[in-house]
Amino acid sequence: MGPGDRPTDADLQVAYELGIEIANQNWVLLTGGRNAGVMDAASKGASEHGGVVVGVLPDSDRSRMSSYVDIPIVTGIGSARNNINVLTSDVIIACGTGAGTLSEIMLAVKAGKHVVLLNQNDEALGFLRSLESDLLHEVSSVSEAMKEIKRWL
Amino acid sequence: MGPGDRPTDADLQVAYELGIEIANQNWVLLTGGRNAGVMDAASKGASEHGGVVVGVLPDSDRSRMSSYVDIPIVTGIGSARNNINVLTSDVIIACGTGAGTLSEIMLAVKAGKHVVLLNQNDEALGFLRSLESDLLHEVSSVSEAMKEIKRWL
Amino acid sequence: MGPGDRPTDADLQVAYELGIEIANQNWVLLTGGRNAGVMDAASKGASEHGGVVVGVLPDSDRSRMSSYVDIPIVTGIGSARNNINVLTSDVIIACGTGAGTLSEIMLAVKAGKHVVLLNQNDEALGFLRSLESDLLHEVSSVSEAMKEIKRWL
Amino acid sequence: MGPGDRPTDADLQVAYELGIEIANQNWVLLTGGRNAGVMDAASKGASEHGGVVVGVLPDSDRSRMSSYVDIPIVTGIGSARNNINVLTSDVIIACGTGAGTLSEIMLAVKAGKHVVLLNQNDEALGFLRSLESDLLHEVSSVSEAMKEIKRWL
Repeated sequence: MGPGDRPTDADLQVAYELGIEIANQNWVLLTGGRNAGVMDAASKGASEHGGVVVGVLPDSDRSRMSSYVDIPIVTGIGSARNNINVLTSDVIIACGTGAGTLSEIMLAVKAGKHVVLLNQNDEALGFLRSLESDLLHEVSSVSEAMKEIKRWL
Repeated sequence: MGPGDRPTDADLQVAYELGIEIANQNWVLLTGGRNAGVMDAASKGASEHGGVVVGVLPDSDRSRMSSYVDIPIVTGIGSARNNINVLTSDVIIACGTGAGTLSEIMLAVKAGKHVVLLNQNDEALGFLRSLESDLLHEVSSVSEAMKEIKRWL
Repeated sequence: MGPGDRPTDADLQVAYELGIEIANQNWVLLTGGRNAGVMDAASKGASEHGGVVVGVLPDSDRSRMSSYVDIPIVTGIGSARNNINVLTSDVIIACGTGAGTLSEIMLAVKAGKHVVLLNQNDEALGFLRSLESDLLHEVSSVSEAMKEIKRWL
Repeated sequence: MGPGDRPTDADLQVAYELGIEIANQNWVLLTGGRNAGVMDAASKGASEHGGVVVGVLPDSDRSRMSSYVDIPIVTGIGSARNNINVLTSDVIIACGTGAGTLSEIMLAVKAGKHVVLLNQNDEALGFLRSLESDLLHEVSSVSEAMKEIKRWL
């Protein structure tokens, strides 16, 4: 999970590398499915390395779908689909900060899912630490993220 | 799509064969994901023949998931997930009659999706014909169903 | 519940009268909320007679809302909102036949809710009778509908 | 909106007073509908002062409903209902900090809705300020909250 709009260059680069690593593990990558930002970058990384990409779209058609999605899920329920992303994932990786991303991190905490935090800014980290949740795990690189994910699978 | 509860033996047999044929075409099979009735039988057929099975679950966990599902989508939205099944499918195959199945056929008509009708009883067919919809296609065998599906892909 | 598109004149008249009767009972009328067909007619009847009208809208804004709705619920989940209508209602009244209406009747049966059937055509009745459900109740007038509703409240 | 689980005493007191003020304005109060925390306290305040309370429940029945809800909306879609709360509200008041509350504030920002922030802790405020959103409005009392709400209606 990560910002669709206005991601940083670092968000996109990290998301792309995460996509590659996830494909290399033969895991299924689940994203928000749109052709924008972190979800598109991660999907590209996974797709280019033979991974399977599931995209859970907010819209009722595929017009804004990332071209790297193998299996689109067309929900037609808008941002309410964020909770499907959370419930379906074994582990959530939040890469970058944004309103939609934070809503997913919060839904994950409510659902008891582990979240690996990457590229969060200081203010987001300040808030997330204050929750004192055992489900939130800060990492500072893709390789650390992969180690952390394996702990919770 | 088809009854999860109280399917007929013919429903289950036809669903199983459809799963095999869908796998043989290298299509992705999407079902309601539960370990019951037509969705389980179709998933079994596809899975045993190397197909990819996506299961869109009504529940917020995987406790009632068919063991033949490769990619579960855990929606947590109950029967509201029927509309996701419809929007996500390229063509819908309705195998057998039941309340949930009919709700999906109706949602498909509303969404403008083609539906191939198999193993519907006379009363269901009477009603479905009265809709005079160009989207509803009656067939009487698995091989006819496969031909009809190909017309609408 | 009833057709939004292409209702018959009788559907609209009966829906309007039902709205009046529901208001006279001081019951809350719940509809699909749009400015079309049976939902608009029933809302008009209730609103003109001092009733409270809740409209559960499929859209993510109020642009297609009936002007007779007092309390809009803006779901943004499209036809998936049909299940909310069903779960929220104490008793469902289906007035007229259509794809959306049938989907709601079917969801109601799945959810164990009583449905009073009014203005259904022969083909719909043939199918609905074949379900042999204790939850489906045919009536032939507004006054019969009101009696039947009271049995199930 | 506010924490259902582990609200502070101040959260509950402020929510109760907000409910009273909302009722005094003849506005409709919309909450998450459960018999817990801030949603219950606000509903109590409004209900005791003649207000109308709409409760948008996550569950598929009313077993966990606040006794102060007049009009329950039974969604059956779990935390995905948070987005319905946001889309339906004219203005959102976030009273207290919690995972569910933050998810709703974030969804509100995504949906372009104004949010009045009350009883947020320093870490939450630090993060919310960093978003630099024109939609987020900090206040420090119920009377300030009421003034701010009126600006955005």
